[in-house]
Amino acid sequence: MEIKGKNYIGYSLSSQGDRTFQSYVPAKDSFLPEHFHTATIDEVEQTMLLAKQAFGKYAQVSAAKRADFLIAISEEIMAIGDVLLERANLETGLPIARLQGERARTINQLTQFAELLREGSWMDASIDTALPDRTPVPKPDIRKMLVPIGPVIVFGSSNFPFAYSVAGVDTGPALAAGNPVIVKAHAAHPGVSDLTAQAIVKAAQRTGMPDGVFSMLYDDGFEVGTALVKHPASKAVGFTGSMKGGMALFKMAQEREEPIAVFAEMGSVNPIVVLPEYLEHNALELGKTLAGSVSLGAGQFCTNPGLVFVTKTQGLIAFTDSYKNEILKTTSATMLTAGICKNYYKLCDHAFEQEDVNKLAVSEQMSEGQNQAQASIATVSGESFIANPKLHEEVFGPFSLLVICEDTNEMLEAISHLKGQLTCSLMAEESEVNAHAEIVNQLAQISGRFILNGVPTGVEVCPSMHHGGPFPATADAKFTSVGRHSILRFVRPQSFQGWPDELLPDELKNSNPLGIFRLVNNQFSKDAIK
Amino acid sequence: MEIKGKNYIGYSLSSQGDRTFQSYVPAKDSFLPEHFHTATIDEVEQTMLLAKQAFGKYAQVSAAKRADFLIAISEEIMAIGDVLLERANLETGLPIARLQGERARTINQLTQFAELLREGSWMDASIDTALPDRTPVPKPDIRKMLVPIGPVIVFGSSNFPFAYSVAGVDTGPALAAGNPVIVKAHAAHPGVSDLTAQAIVKAAQRTGMPDGVFSMLYDDGFEVGTALVKHPASKAVGFTGSMKGGMALFKMAQEREEPIAVFAEMGSVNPIVVLPEYLEHNALELGKTLAGSVSLGAGQFCTNPGLVFVTKTQGLIAFTDSYKNEILKTTSATMLTAGICKNYYKLCDHAFEQEDVNKLAVSEQMSEGQNQAQASIATVSGESFIANPKLHEEVFGPFSLLVICEDTNEMLEAISHLKGQLTCSLMAEESEVNAHAEIVNQLAQISGRFILNGVPTGVEVCPSMHHGGPFPATADAKFTSVGRHSILRFVRPQSFQGWPDELLPDELKNSNPLGIFRLVNNQFSKDAIK
Repeated sequence: MEIKGKNYIGYSLSSQGDRTFQSYVPAKDSFLPEHFHTATIDEVEQTMLLAKQAFGKYAQVSAAKRADFLIAISEEIMAIGDVLLERANLETGLPIARLQGERARTINQLTQFAELLREGSWMDASIDTALPDRTPVPKPDIRKMLVPIGPVIVFGSSNFPFAYSVAGVDTGPALAAGNPVIVKAHAAHPGVSDLTAQAIVKAAQRTGMPDGVFSMLYDDGFEVGTALVKHPASKAVGFTGSMKGGMALFKMAQEREEPIAVFAEMGSVNPIVVLPEYLEHNALELGKTLAGSVSLGAGQFCTNPGLVFVTKTQGLIAFTDSYKNEILKTTSATMLTAGICKNYYKLCDHAFEQEDVNKLAVSEQMSEGQNQAQASIATVSGESFIANPKLHEEVFGPFSLLVICEDTNEMLEAISHLKGQLTCSLMAEESEVNAHAEIVNQLAQISGRFILNGVPTGVEVCPSMHHGGPFPATADAKFTSVGRHSILRFVRPQSFQGWPDELLPDELKNSNPLGIFRLVNNQFSKDAIK
Repeated sequence: MEIKGKNYIGYSLSSQGDRTFQSYVPAKDSFLPEHFHTATIDEVEQTMLLAKQAFGKYAQVSAAKRADFLIAISEEIMAIGDVLLERANLETGLPIARLQGERARTINQLTQFAELLREGSWMDASIDTALPDRTPVPKPDIRKMLVPIGPVIVFGSSNFPFAYSVAGVDTGPALAAGNPVIVKAHAAHPGVSDLTAQAIVKAAQRTGMPDGVFSMLYDDGFEVGTALVKHPASKAVGFTGSMKGGMALFKMAQEREEPIAVFAEMGSVNPIVVLPEYLEHNALELGKTLAGSVSLGAGQFCTNPGLVFVTKTQGLIAFTDSYKNEILKTTSATMLTAGICKNYYKLCDHAFEQEDVNKLAVSEQMSEGQNQAQASIATVSGESFIANPKLHEEVFGPFSLLVICEDTNEMLEAISHLKGQLTCSLMAEESEVNAHAEIVNQLAQISGRFILNGVPTGVEVCPSMHHGGPFPATADAKFTSVGRHSILRFVRPQSFQGWPDELLPDELKNSNPLGIFRLVNNQFSKDAIK
């Protein structure tokens, strides 16, 4: 499969503009030969017009056929073969093994949505049958289900070229729900995006989907993304990235004549709070576990633990020594882009310059290649942390700050300054959980996922995974970007009142032809209605 | 029960400010004797501090006890007796019979939420059990359920002094979900609000709820509402009212350091689209039905049908004559406030002044009393309607515009100019539905509730009712303010990873002690986990 470098406006290739850019290879600080054409505003217009037309048709395509489309996408992605992994490795600096795992996760995500569509109960069908003889007024027949919303704009992330990108956590559920998708390809991995877009287009054509069900445009600046979000035909935005980028899109979307939702996953420091007894009993092991979590994937996970809270207690020195030694032993890794790498060291230096912050360890092993991130950890007192909001912010990369509190009272005060988080981890003996109810409640209130005795890295793709959290972790704490419920971002409920059975969607017909769970007169059931 | 005229800050009465206002009686154009104290910014601060503290405690109160609280509220409201209805009649001008029905609906809403809490499955509990031996990495135990979000600000509506006010569609589900509620009492019915607040406070005390679970503040201006929405402790806003008011709160909430959701129900014209054969077969009856719906409750329903689309077809003259005669026969009714009444006539005159708009009928019977609204209907051609966006906006009151299109093609173009709506009604013979797929699809895309052969007035309180719609009908088409799913506005999902059974909430324990439906390893079940 060959990289085209042109915009995918539905089934057509388009390169009306003159501006192009190339793939950057972070490990080599060099560029790859292909040129990618930045879309013009005119191309954005054509894309959205096509998407709007496609919506009318795609919303009528049955769930079973949409499931076939998703499976076809996963097949076409696998059919690209190793070329895809190799290109991703060049463009992102991520190791092949990690990329293999991420591709498998992406396929798994698509497959799970196909299964969800085939089972069908996710549509939350609800039926209240008529009571024509009720007084003082008859009760009408009312039925409700989830319906698609319209064209969805997807901004892929830099750190997951597959799972959170062109065919990732936004595209999968948006297509599953019956919405056309328009991807703004991430400029940090345009070649991977190009190959993936071709796979989706092939799959759409092979399964007979309407032209415009999927489009992808290039831009290494902000113009195309802005035009897509502001376009009246756009009905929702999916975004994974920086706080700055997410909030810019959020504001733009709120200022539209018709405001639309931006499901943005932004900043999270994923605090780890270690209670005294646990620290005492697990000092050595904990140092090792944390060092592994902090340095994983060059710290470029949204669930990277950026803050660790401990108290001055038995075991603190043993833990600190272990943590320090384990970080020293870690090896540097290539970061995703030159900009991210530069910013990482800038933010590390910024942290080290703050009052009372002491560097504890920096990884000593350097890998070959450019744009290498060394894991870095530092310490600060609870008091200084509380006084300095700059220390509460995320440092994107393998950095973590160890906050040493006088006692659990100071610890409670310190964590009460934290904003919303994707995850909070509590490291505690079972007996300590009940004894520290206020700390537990505080962490519960600010976290989307509340972990006991585990690190936040590693996001399981399963129905019970909530990957989202109170602001600013995500723009809307109600929604997850991982798992079956992520489809709820791209649907809305609709009631049908007084429609005869034969004109209702299958989900709401008396005979329940799809055999799905429904709420019938306020009782869950798979039964048909007589 | 006596009206206090003071702010309810939790269980305490407070009147720190000097500014007061009185109840206006629209039918008599006079004022009632009691003075209501506008809250000060300091009182707002005290209220929110108390609400924040109460949240920590109330979130721990079991669902069964919250259900008792809701039932106690309904009992205390009924215990006020006829005084409540009489006061509402004075303050709103709405007839006693209508208010009796609305009170019953309010009790019904509270009871339905108590039942929802007792049954428990609404929490969307989901469990994925661990796979410790999975390779390459073990699968952790992850469980998920809905949890409360924190203090909710409620702005009651002017047109429903019970069902959409102090103990209405926002307060009920917000309290049911485990959130403290702070009501900004509507200045158009402060006495009703005062009595209802006392009922809620009594119920909270009687059932042992924490102080601060409910507060209510007065203001006949915007200062208190603004301060409440901007307060960092506020986590969501419920609002029913005008487009202008809703959008002002929406913008305010989006510009906060931490943006919060405003569930605003705003403007809707609830179009009725009549296809040719249906018009021909039902000309006389339709005129009567529409006249009833347009004039119901002085047209002061959010589901009032403001636009009716017909084509130049057999039956048009018979229909128009019938509609005109039925409107002429209607009787005027008292509007809620002098401002609303004045604005109604201003907007009617504004409509009549538009090019090609012709007055068809104005109700000829006048009731006694001040602030009387006469039902008014007018006609306009499809062409002029399409060309003039001013005619697409809501006129709050018993006004409706009949849009006479050349044919169904022009009708399709006309309705393609409509924005999002709470409801759309299609009046059609069954055979016409399939023959006009584009009209059907267009109405489906813009409506929250899609009605066949029925008028939009009359909102059934049942699980399948979606009372919400694409912008600007509501600020977020994903959520309803009526029915069990309205609780979803005031919760967020939270995952628990790696917690031992005894530390999990009852909803997520292996034994399923609450006997609720759960998604266990992706299968719906009420079974315990072995």
